[in-house]
Amino acid sequence: MGKVELTAGKLKGLARLADREGKFRMLAIDQRGSLQRMLAKAAGKDKSEIGYKDLALAKRLVTQYLSPYFSATLMDPQFGVPESLKYLNRNSALLIAREKSGTEPAGYNNREKKTVLLDGWSVEKIKKAGADAVKLLLYYRPDGSKEIKEYQENIVRQVGEQCKKFDMPFVLEPVGYAFKDDEPSTDSASYAKKKPEIVLAITEEFSKPEYGVDILKLEFPVNLKYVKEFHNGYFDGKVREAVYTLKDAEDACYEITQKSSVPWVILSAGVDIEEFVYNVEIASKEGASGFLAGRAVWKEFAKYYPNTEDMIAWLSTSGVTNYYRLYEASKKAVPYFENKQFGSFAGITLKDAGEDWYKKF
Amino acid sequence: MGKVELTAGKLKGLARLADREGKFRMLAIDQRGSLQRMLAKAAGKDKSEIGYKDLALAKRLVTQYLSPYFSATLMDPQFGVPESLKYLNRNSALLIAREKSGTEPAGYNNREKKTVLLDGWSVEKIKKAGADAVKLLLYYRPDGSKEIKEYQENIVRQVGEQCKKFDMPFVLEPVGYAFKDDEPSTDSASYAKKKPEIVLAITEEFSKPEYGVDILKLEFPVNLKYVKEFHNGYFDGKVREAVYTLKDAEDACYEITQKSSVPWVILSAGVDIEEFVYNVEIASKEGASGFLAGRAVWKEFAKYYPNTEDMIAWLSTSGVTNYYRLYEASKKAVPYFENKQFGSFAGITLKDAGEDWYKKF
Repeated sequence: MGKVELTAGKLKGLARLADREGKFRMLAIDQRGSLQRMLAKAAGKDKSEIGYKDLALAKRLVTQYLSPYFSATLMDPQFGVPESLKYLNRNSALLIAREKSGTEPAGYNNREKKTVLLDGWSVEKIKKAGADAVKLLLYYRPDGSKEIKEYQENIVRQVGEQCKKFDMPFVLEPVGYAFKDDEPSTDSASYAKKKPEIVLAITEEFSKPEYGVDILKLEFPVNLKYVKEFHNGYFDGKVREAVYTLKDAEDACYEITQKSSVPWVILSAGVDIEEFVYNVEIASKEGASGFLAGRAVWKEFAKYYPNTEDMIAWLSTSGVTNYYRLYEASKKAVPYFENKQFGSFAGITLKDAGEDWYKKF
Repeated sequence: MGKVELTAGKLKGLARLADREGKFRMLAIDQRGSLQRMLAKAAGKDKSEIGYKDLALAKRLVTQYLSPYFSATLMDPQFGVPESLKYLNRNSALLIAREKSGTEPAGYNNREKKTVLLDGWSVEKIKKAGADAVKLLLYYRPDGSKEIKEYQENIVRQVGEQCKKFDMPFVLEPVGYAFKDDEPSTDSASYAKKKPEIVLAITEEFSKPEYGVDILKLEFPVNLKYVKEFHNGYFDGKVREAVYTLKDAEDACYEITQKSSVPWVILSAGVDIEEFVYNVEIASKEGASGFLAGRAVWKEFAKYYPNTEDMIAWLSTSGVTNYYRLYEASKKAVPYFENKQFGSFAGITLKDAGEDWYKKF
């Protein structure tokens, strides 16, 4: 069998992001806007009253009490790294986000979204800080305008090149969205129907080698609240239209595995843990290599803000339980080295391995 | 209490090099010349017949079967990294050597030694490869010539600056040696008598902030084969002069802890595991933060060369046992964050932590 050549930084980064089973069981605490809203709500304050100190504290607590369980932890450089880095467990690899929180309205009638890279920040700095990988969140509609698509694709290419230059794995998180004013929200039957197509087209696009992506962090390709088996309010008590079945969800995940040229993981996108456990179970069975879970794991802890002790108590009990639920749900996940890209651990080799490696590197 | 500010790369690197207890329990497999001699002897060949493939295989086996136990693994970039990197356990941090194997004769009558940096290699490449720290081996006699001392000190300063630039911990390994022709070998009563003084002066010199050292990797300050309690052939059957006592060994280690401005670890310098366990026990009790152990851990496995199966069998039984012996011996080691430099974990803070960290970094 052939061997896939990886450079040293990419090889070591991938190995570190995965746990001992070769599965990505990763924690995201790089939320900015959404965490701010949660803390404001809990404290009965306006969003604008929740500042750096509040966000940094919340992120630090999640890092401190949950990173010991997850194979990697994703931080943002504004409110996360400065207070949380010291509390990252030594066995949890570090991913850092490259983009700015939020997006810029763009395109016809401002119905589309543009990603903005964080000013004063760079892949070079992510490497310098000792991170194991770079993450980029990208809003993308395969059926969007040519102009905005190209704009977004260029950003991915740019970050991909930097990740090559500084030799670290590139985790791309391309997510769909509803066109402003022209479409109902993503929690609608019409968007739910489009979702599999969007996620699959995204997978195909960013699997192209020109982007230099090493791991795709993807949305679950259907909205489980709209499957026949759960549409009757199973997750949140709200009855919705049934637009597909669980079998369709499995098929869509299987399709992603077919179309993706790299290992992929499932993101939690704010759904509750109950629903996310289903996402992870189905995705893992169909070929995903794990998860990168954010709010689904920890969001309840924000309700206790600003009572630090109660926040900690929640994280170190229910938060930890959530990890174990996801661990179980991802039992069938495909180790990254068994992804078709490599075939098996034996299929990976260091680029230019040999006596002159250190000169060529 | 005051806080010590660390940059992100140094902070994260230190945390990763240590185990969950904050102790450095590290493995060295960056030997080149000495490993070559061992393999040649085992195979009944000339040293020149042992090439890249033989060395790379031996190093790969040690990495594969022992790195899962140690908090970090030290590799060389010539024969180690190319074949071993893939086999480094995800929980073992990575150190890479900066120097070339061997030294250059220098000074009056060529009695001194100069360190040579490896051509085509750099701290920048060590960072790029995803390593957590840089290691530099330096031969140094505090009572050597001004010229050679300055030359050696300059190399340390240079590497220290690069480690700052690329933001990684700098592990310096300054070791004494016997002046060629003018002194008997290091295994002599006269050198043994000088050893404490040499190690202490070295500690003092490289504790100066101008060198930018983060961890000192030091020789045991006495030669235990020459202490009253063991001089009668306890370790290798050979009777030697008693030039000091175990109490002197403890005192010398205590002195190192007093003089060192950074956490220090003990190196194994080719002694047998029995003797090294004593070294580690005494050093740990007197303030060392662990060990960086090479031949003492694995050298016996080379005797089975070229029988790969027997080499593996030795590593995964006796090699693992050696780790546990050293783990026990280092139970009293001082967690790096309790080193006087920091006082406690609370004494460490990220430099420029705050809202603008990512801009200032």
